[in-house]
Amino acid sequence: MTAVDFASFVETLATHSGDAILPFFRTSLAALDKSTNGDFDPVTEADRAGEVAMRRLINANFPSHGIIGEEFGAERRDAEYVWVLDPIDGTKAFICGLPIWGTLIGLTHNGRPVYGMMNQPFSRERFSGDGKAARYEGPAGRRTLRVRACPKVSEAVISTTHPGMMAPAERQRYDRLETRAKLSRYGGDCYAYAMLAAGHIDLVVESGLNPYDIVAIIPIVEGAGGVITSWSGEDAAGGGSIIAASDSRVHEEALAILNS
Amino acid sequence: MTAVDFASFVETLATHSGDAILPFFRTSLAALDKSTNGDFDPVTEADRAGEVAMRRLINANFPSHGIIGEEFGAERRDAEYVWVLDPIDGTKAFICGLPIWGTLIGLTHNGRPVYGMMNQPFSRERFSGDGKAARYEGPAGRRTLRVRACPKVSEAVISTTHPGMMAPAERQRYDRLETRAKLSRYGGDCYAYAMLAAGHIDLVVESGLNPYDIVAIIPIVEGAGGVITSWSGEDAAGGGSIIAASDSRVHEEALAILNS
Repeated sequence: MTAVDFASFVETLATHSGDAILPFFRTSLAALDKSTNGDFDPVTEADRAGEVAMRRLINANFPSHGIIGEEFGAERRDAEYVWVLDPIDGTKAFICGLPIWGTLIGLTHNGRPVYGMMNQPFSRERFSGDGKAARYEGPAGRRTLRVRACPKVSEAVISTTHPGMMAPAERQRYDRLETRAKLSRYGGDCYAYAMLAAGHIDLVVESGLNPYDIVAIIPIVEGAGGVITSWSGEDAAGGGSIIAASDSRVHEEALAILNS
Repeated sequence: MTAVDFASFVETLATHSGDAILPFFRTSLAALDKSTNGDFDPVTEADRAGEVAMRRLINANFPSHGIIGEEFGAERRDAEYVWVLDPIDGTKAFICGLPIWGTLIGLTHNGRPVYGMMNQPFSRERFSGDGKAARYEGPAGRRTLRVRACPKVSEAVISTTHPGMMAPAERQRYDRLETRAKLSRYGGDCYAYAMLAAGHIDLVVESGLNPYDIVAIIPIVEGAGGVITSWSGEDAAGGGSIIAASDSRVHEEALAILNS
């Protein structure tokens, strides 16, 4: 059984988690936050509802598979297949009503990411990949995702979610890189990786990531022809400081700048 | 003739400018950028196409009205009614493929903003207001826009597009405010004001704005019950350093912090 066999099951996970999460986005449910002095946190509720929906489906269909999720921790983490889930990546965007958060659904086989999806249920956009190919599906149709060529940092569009989230030493290294790029953009969350895969962004650079923030992203970026590693050029699947690039040349130069 | 009479005409402007701009968003047209060494700038082309579409309609329907636009300057700027247009507010978001840029369509009467719309043609969302009321229309239907209560800065969600765009002195003042807020979010562009009007964000603070960046926003924010001024508490219509608040209490405290 190869990873590709799971593609239609991932679509089902996306549909069910989206149905569980959307009632909390930009609705009166979200507004309860302030009236109850924090007893009710709509993002946490939405996160939990989305993860419960996915765990239920996985356990019913693939009871031997493991699951690592942001909200409910790990079960069977040493299984051959492990699902790595972040129901709402981009909680700040979610809180602010901005439609660029996403549900991350990743699958590892013997510890290696083999399939991933970023689902945006509000805009009804899905970005998925298996490391060899990647595709987009939205209201206007489907297409293949493909990174663009970018020979050097001075021509690159760079994105990070919020530089203030970096530790001071990391921030210095990031700033050194950002200064040399053609254009920088903040606030992308998982959507920035999707736009890198789609050929609109050349570098996404972040730190402090958990595996559930990145495992689903790897097969999409690599499937679209991009490169994704840690800041020291190692496997991205463990999280931490991550750099994704549209082009191996800009990846190499960016690593050199980050580590100079 | 009151401003409200223009509401359906503004919908027409939004439809036509959206049709002119969308072919340049996330398409192969956008990818021409790099292959021609900058001779073709897709955002500029999209900006121009959107503004030409709106100017043509305004001149055909209201030949005595003035127009101030980002791309083609001013004509009849002293007219009783003047349209203030920014075809793509959030060009960086546009370049990055993020669907949170917008087309700003504002109308002034004797220099005062009386009607405004923020149109997001990709997500098919429209936010409009006349200073007394504001409304949202999206794929899932229509609703009234209303800010939420926020008594103080320490409970506020604050948003700015990119602190790096501020001059150093402004940046210091902004950072002082951001530090005291509950949560900060970057990368909102005009969408952040729309989300303030919708009750999801409490403060939007920016600097270096042109009139065409803000005239359309004022009747939406005020129509939803919010407050919008310069950092010194004066009329926002001239641009410059702008602060929008969901609640007059948080507006007052934020001004005090910015000016302390």
